[in-house]
Amino acid sequence: MNQDLQRERAGASFNPELLTNVLDGSAENTQRRREIENLILKDPDFQHENLNFLSRSQRYEVAVKKSATMVEKMRKFGIADPDEIMWFKKLHLVNFVEPVGLNYSMFIPTLLNQGTTAQQEKWLHSSQGLEIIGTYAQTELGHGTHLRGLETTATYDPETQEFILNSPTVTSIKWWPGGLGKTSNHAIVLAQLITQGKCYGLHAFIVPIRELGTHKPLPGITVGDIGPKFGYDEMDNGYLKMDNYRIPRENMLMKYAQVKPDGTYVKPLNNKLTYGTMVFIRSFLVGESARCLSKACTIAIRYSAVRHQSEIKPGEPEPQILDYQTQQYKLFPLLATAYAFQFVGAYMKETYHRINEDIGHGDLSELPELHALTAGLKAFTSWTTNTAIEACRMACGGHGYSHCSGLPNIYVNFTPTCTFEGENTVMMLQTARFLMKSYDQVHSGKLVCGMVSYLNDLPSQRIQPQQVAVWPTVVDINSPDSLTEAYKLRAARLVEIAAKNLQAEVIHRNSKEVAWNLTSIDLVRASEAHCHYVAVKLFTEKVLEIQEKSIQAVLRRLCLLYSLYGISQNAGDFLQGSIITESQITQVNERIKALLTAIRPDAVALVDAFDFQDVTLGSVLGRYDGNVYENLFEWAKKSPLNKTEVHESYKYLKSLQSKL
Amino acid sequence: MNQDLQRERAGASFNPELLTNVLDGSAENTQRRREIENLILKDPDFQHENLNFLSRSQRYEVAVKKSATMVEKMRKFGIADPDEIMWFKKLHLVNFVEPVGLNYSMFIPTLLNQGTTAQQEKWLHSSQGLEIIGTYAQTELGHGTHLRGLETTATYDPETQEFILNSPTVTSIKWWPGGLGKTSNHAIVLAQLITQGKCYGLHAFIVPIRELGTHKPLPGITVGDIGPKFGYDEMDNGYLKMDNYRIPRENMLMKYAQVKPDGTYVKPLNNKLTYGTMVFIRSFLVGESARCLSKACTIAIRYSAVRHQSEIKPGEPEPQILDYQTQQYKLFPLLATAYAFQFVGAYMKETYHRINEDIGHGDLSELPELHALTAGLKAFTSWTTNTAIEACRMACGGHGYSHCSGLPNIYVNFTPTCTFEGENTVMMLQTARFLMKSYDQVHSGKLVCGMVSYLNDLPSQRIQPQQVAVWPTVVDINSPDSLTEAYKLRAARLVEIAAKNLQAEVIHRNSKEVAWNLTSIDLVRASEAHCHYVAVKLFTEKVLEIQEKSIQAVLRRLCLLYSLYGISQNAGDFLQGSIITESQITQVNERIKALLTAIRPDAVALVDAFDFQDVTLGSVLGRYDGNVYENLFEWAKKSPLNKTEVHESYKYLKSLQSKL
Repeated sequence: MNQDLQRERAGASFNPELLTNVLDGSAENTQRRREIENLILKDPDFQHENLNFLSRSQRYEVAVKKSATMVEKMRKFGIADPDEIMWFKKLHLVNFVEPVGLNYSMFIPTLLNQGTTAQQEKWLHSSQGLEIIGTYAQTELGHGTHLRGLETTATYDPETQEFILNSPTVTSIKWWPGGLGKTSNHAIVLAQLITQGKCYGLHAFIVPIRELGTHKPLPGITVGDIGPKFGYDEMDNGYLKMDNYRIPRENMLMKYAQVKPDGTYVKPLNNKLTYGTMVFIRSFLVGESARCLSKACTIAIRYSAVRHQSEIKPGEPEPQILDYQTQQYKLFPLLATAYAFQFVGAYMKETYHRINEDIGHGDLSELPELHALTAGLKAFTSWTTNTAIEACRMACGGHGYSHCSGLPNIYVNFTPTCTFEGENTVMMLQTARFLMKSYDQVHSGKLVCGMVSYLNDLPSQRIQPQQVAVWPTVVDINSPDSLTEAYKLRAARLVEIAAKNLQAEVIHRNSKEVAWNLTSIDLVRASEAHCHYVAVKLFTEKVLEIQEKSIQAVLRRLCLLYSLYGISQNAGDFLQGSIITESQITQVNERIKALLTAIRPDAVALVDAFDFQDVTLGSVLGRYDGNVYENLFEWAKKSPLNKTEVHESYKYLKSLQSKL
Repeated sequence: MNQDLQRERAGASFNPELLTNVLDGSAENTQRRREIENLILKDPDFQHENLNFLSRSQRYEVAVKKSATMVEKMRKFGIADPDEIMWFKKLHLVNFVEPVGLNYSMFIPTLLNQGTTAQQEKWLHSSQGLEIIGTYAQTELGHGTHLRGLETTATYDPETQEFILNSPTVTSIKWWPGGLGKTSNHAIVLAQLITQGKCYGLHAFIVPIRELGTHKPLPGITVGDIGPKFGYDEMDNGYLKMDNYRIPRENMLMKYAQVKPDGTYVKPLNNKLTYGTMVFIRSFLVGESARCLSKACTIAIRYSAVRHQSEIKPGEPEPQILDYQTQQYKLFPLLATAYAFQFVGAYMKETYHRINEDIGHGDLSELPELHALTAGLKAFTSWTTNTAIEACRMACGGHGYSHCSGLPNIYVNFTPTCTFEGENTVMMLQTARFLMKSYDQVHSGKLVCGMVSYLNDLPSQRIQPQQVAVWPTVVDINSPDSLTEAYKLRAARLVEIAAKNLQAEVIHRNSKEVAWNLTSIDLVRASEAHCHYVAVKLFTEKVLEIQEKSIQAVLRRLCLLYSLYGISQNAGDFLQGSIITESQITQVNERIKALLTAIRPDAVALVDAFDFQDVTLGSVLGRYDGNVYENLFEWAKKSPLNKTEVHESYKYLKSLQSKL
């Protein structure tokens, strides 16, 4: 093992295995996860070429093989539990993506959620066995966020009992679906349903796009790859254009809404239930943010422990760059954020399952808050993570720019999270809509519950910008509880400001919608403050749950750093509301420095506790073993430019020399 | 032309051509730039394949040909002025990089600056004609920032009058030089000079690495490509390992330091002069930041004018996304920043040339401030631009993730600017060293001049954290001058805090160096505030210079937005020093909203004024002409995945189906 890392591990104040168990939920989970990961690590079938050295077409071919092998192996190993599937896939893919992924993550789940029993019988088995390879086609070239704006039509023809699918304009061409470009032979297409001359809005249809057996596009179908992207190289995100393309009536997913053979439309009983998948995916993305940020921190912190550079005291050996205060200030707040998001992710997962059970019993009462919370937290955690991964990359100096670090791939494959499954600004505004509703509710004398219950204190006049002096604001900067309170006050204040500005604009503009647009900066700010409060609150509560003293101590430091760093970065918000005083901000900044020093000896153990085997596989800088520079040199030698002949371009240069 | 853009242009309050002239320096400059750009646009030899669709090896081959053609054409067209070369190259490369670039940007200039007349006679002609293709090899696998830590040795052997070059360890392997991997046959190598048993530090040596004629690595030389990176795909950044590799004594660049035939070392008269190149490149990078940010704004703002999405009022047609306040808030402060940096870049260029002339006359007095200012501004502008390009990309929704937008290439090829030519945090600390020196100087009773002259006011006790109430701080948020004053007070305050914290740590730690490290967060913060002040000041001064009223009006709005946005984002700094009051912050936020509305009608004209032909070439989203969606569809069809047969991977999938 690398000597620097060995020394760091020996000096830690806690046993990282215990913290890993906390993150996994239990020691048993850790053990089972490792069993599954070892299936991959020990299986020679999983040794593939490093995708970094391949062209996009080659990457695609390798990725298809990887995907297929993975499906085969999961069957063989009997891996079926969703968590276990995730562990298996994460390690196997090592920050890359899979062309048949959407068959399992979107096509099959949508079939199960929205298909009738007969439909499931018809398509489920063959899609599970990859005879049918499906994808999910919603976004169009000209339309993303605004679902009502989608232009693809499915017009029912009662004569033949078929739907006629059409892409009437260039903007209506389906665009982006993963696996559509080359891999899929079916797609669930979202289209405006028209029957008996009336449009009933978006519905889902199973559309065969390529012929089974030959894989050739079917007549009436134009399909292909949308071209090279920022990341997702091995994924064939595709386009789909349909021209008077007919499918049988039975291909409309009819568990809820239906079209009868004569064309009569039967509307679904409850529209809210279709929220379910969206809420699930967004709460999953909160966990994804946590995982990607944790990986980036693992690489940057291990490398900072191994890299020696420059000098603090003249004449002494070059120190580890982790000993520079500026490096600690770059990385440790991100490490603290990674832990915060791990706990937020775990909370979202638990809450989703709890509320999903309630929904199963017909209780939909908590769905609106869950919907608002997942939207905001998806945006809050993915924006933060997006910036943080790049900060980790740039904290690795030059080597962070090389694919050997693993960081560019983590970044480019993570960043779409800010846009897909709900563009982040739109998400923040959805949360704001819930906050404004809750504010109005409180204002009209009704209590609200859940994470927004702090708004109940508003009518008591405690939160009035003019009367800030009466707030009970002796914040103790050493107490996570007291800091949570400070974040709560900030959120309450910004929600109130947004609500009042919105009211003022409504009066001024005489249009709710125009007023909403002209207050949207304030609304986003309020949502961010609300989400930040939730993250601080959940982290603080988690720390109190931990029994083991050594683990509690180190997490408490991270929790304090997370909370204080947020105050320092948003000092204006806390000062303006007189939540914190000017001299306290100075104390906050000094306390942050002291926390950096206190966390320093545990930094490597804290990233070890994340226990990412795929970091070791995907990043030379994040590996445990050997000399990082020898590993880098070995890696570089595989560059395809080193394999090809140098003479072609040189001959060209030579032929030019005479002219120059 | 696109109808949305046409309407936007018709509605602008000013003539963008006049603003283009301001940015170019004069109408004559604009005209000459366009003449040169037209040489490229009209020449069929410049029509090359789109690099986005090629593999890395293919991109390299195309890039070499591009580079070579470019050299040939510049000779033919008689383009030799540095500005004209830059215009020519920028348009020709369209956000890509060139493998022979370092021959012209580093090898030849270093030869001219540090070589004797005899050395220039020997190598200049053949390197200008690409017979010799040179690069510049400084960074090593284990060493970047800390030049004294470089391990490569050049040991003089008086018997043969040769230097023996060695890479004694794996960490000493030269790493990163552009064009080293495959293209170059010579390198200027930085190595520790050892003669007569003594090490004299880093010196530059001309080292042949490949045989002329065959291009094969010479015996004793191990050379190759360092592998795939985040961007710079077509560049063969390389490694170089030397084993007892001998070069003649005459290959040491001897204009300043010399080694006599017997091995006697003659030291240079003045070390400061070697700063020159560094200062030049860093001040050039400030301009690069401005250009890249301006390009990103051009693409994002044009696309936001063309893209229609969602609804503000129900039932009305989908509005341009530029009408959403959140979109304006994402983009207009960045547009204002782009203009600020354009003027900062122009100032740095002028200042460099002025001071360079002084240096020519033996006057080095302004060099230290210029050195400190370029370091800080390089870091300040490149960090801001780095984040801003990504913000522009993500403001384009899904299409920002496709290479069709041009934004991923702008980002990946810009981001190294944060690390090369001086890592940004290190740069900020260099500026801080100058600020601390200036602070001490003022403290000891001597006046300082230049951009730091505000520190002269410090001993008058006006800036004491305890006595803030006496500051003359009635900031007028509608006056750029008054806002400049506010930024000045913020900088003065943060410099003072850093200086006092540093002093306290020096007393506490009894070591200047340890104290420096433990104050470095404060030091970086002070440098950032100083640079931010400089940017606000230069923008404000530029606005006052403009005669034409319509241009002055629109620039004044941008200048206000830039200044107010910075205050809003760093409200804590301004509140803490009581530079601005709490109620003023609320006014600042409202004023920002009003400015967004005021700038909205001019947004497209403001990016048109940047007049980037390469945006039109490199970005489907940034083009003027036609329907953006038809252009996107045409672009996508070129994807290599669409050209290759689909059957190979499908056969693989089919073979698996039986097993599943």
